[in-house]
Amino acid sequence: MQLATVTGDGLPAVRTVVFRGWMQNPIGDAGHPDDTIAKDVHLKFITDLRSSKMSESKVAEACWYFTETREQFRLRGELMMVTHESTDARLIRQRNGLWKSISDSARAQFSWPTPGSERAPEADDEKDFRCSADINAVSQNFVLMLLRPNYVDHLRLKGFPQKRVLWHRSDIDSWNAQPVNP
Amino acid sequence: MQLATVTGDGLPAVRTVVFRGWMQNPIGDAGHPDDTIAKDVHLKFITDLRSSKMSESKVAEACWYFTETREQFRLRGELMMVTHESTDARLIRQRNGLWKSISDSARAQFSWPTPGSERAPEADDEKDFRCSADINAVSQNFVLMLLRPNYVDHLRLKGFPQKRVLWHRSDIDSWNAQPVNP
Repeated sequence: MQLATVTGDGLPAVRTVVFRGWMQNPIGDAGHPDDTIAKDVHLKFITDLRSSKMSESKVAEACWYFTETREQFRLRGELMMVTHESTDARLIRQRNGLWKSISDSARAQFSWPTPGSERAPEADDEKDFRCSADINAVSQNFVLMLLRPNYVDHLRLKGFPQKRVLWHRSDIDSWNAQPVNP
Repeated sequence: MQLATVTGDGLPAVRTVVFRGWMQNPIGDAGHPDDTIAKDVHLKFITDLRSSKMSESKVAEACWYFTETREQFRLRGELMMVTHESTDARLIRQRNGLWKSISDSARAQFSWPTPGSERAPEADDEKDFRCSADINAVSQNFVLMLLRPNYVDHLRLKGFPQKRVLWHRSDIDSWNAQPVNP
């Protein structure tokens, strides 16, 4: 899917990201009745501590287009970054688990030279990029990025006419649906 | 591909759009040596005069991911809207040509009720959406949207290591390439 943010200069930025699954109720159970847990769901992504995403807007919009069903979801909400400095036990567990679950080559990228920085002319592909990362030692550059949608624009192109519904989160566990013209 | 903008509230917005081809040098030949024309190229999209894109940022970033070659292009630049009020002969021709080139069902959408507005509870699908549009009469709602990239982030995931180059437009006809770490 694609993830859009706003740069420090107020410019739009968008890149393709890999959806890494859902996480329910990441900020803990305190104050949430059990039956709301399933509704407070976040999307999981991973990023690099040195990525520009870390310094961009804390609000993001993800765009997810499903070719087969011809559906588009636009999911806007707050980003939460879970870094090596996080202290929440559940978030640490999630970050550690994700580190183990990704491929060797994905893990190795967190040992590469700083992403987006000028490629050194004397850079040695083998030396700089042929690295491996210990599956049991989470890289300090490894960040679990959580998106908590509070606004969803759902468009269905299949059928006649197209259907479009805007969903606004009104509370931690409740959403309002508003049918709009496609 | 996906097109990201910034809303009036400074929030990120991103949606899937259909690429409608290239247009060279849309702002006319005046002052441009002939040999620069091919380099001043814009991406063509269509939108609705009533769409939220019309009131959002004039800078946009398009994200284009090619599954087969595993390449991503992020193209950022100014948006130019060519509406029924445009007076430039070349732009009017482009807008008219695009109107004729799209499908009947795409044309019909410009006669639909205002996109994004509340769906009237008493709306009649047949009456409101089963419309047809004259191929010879361009809808006032039909907008040719041009994106002129001045910054391109090109990422190649295929091969080892990944390759990433940032392109900055330095003048109307010249670009600087900067290899960066992926």
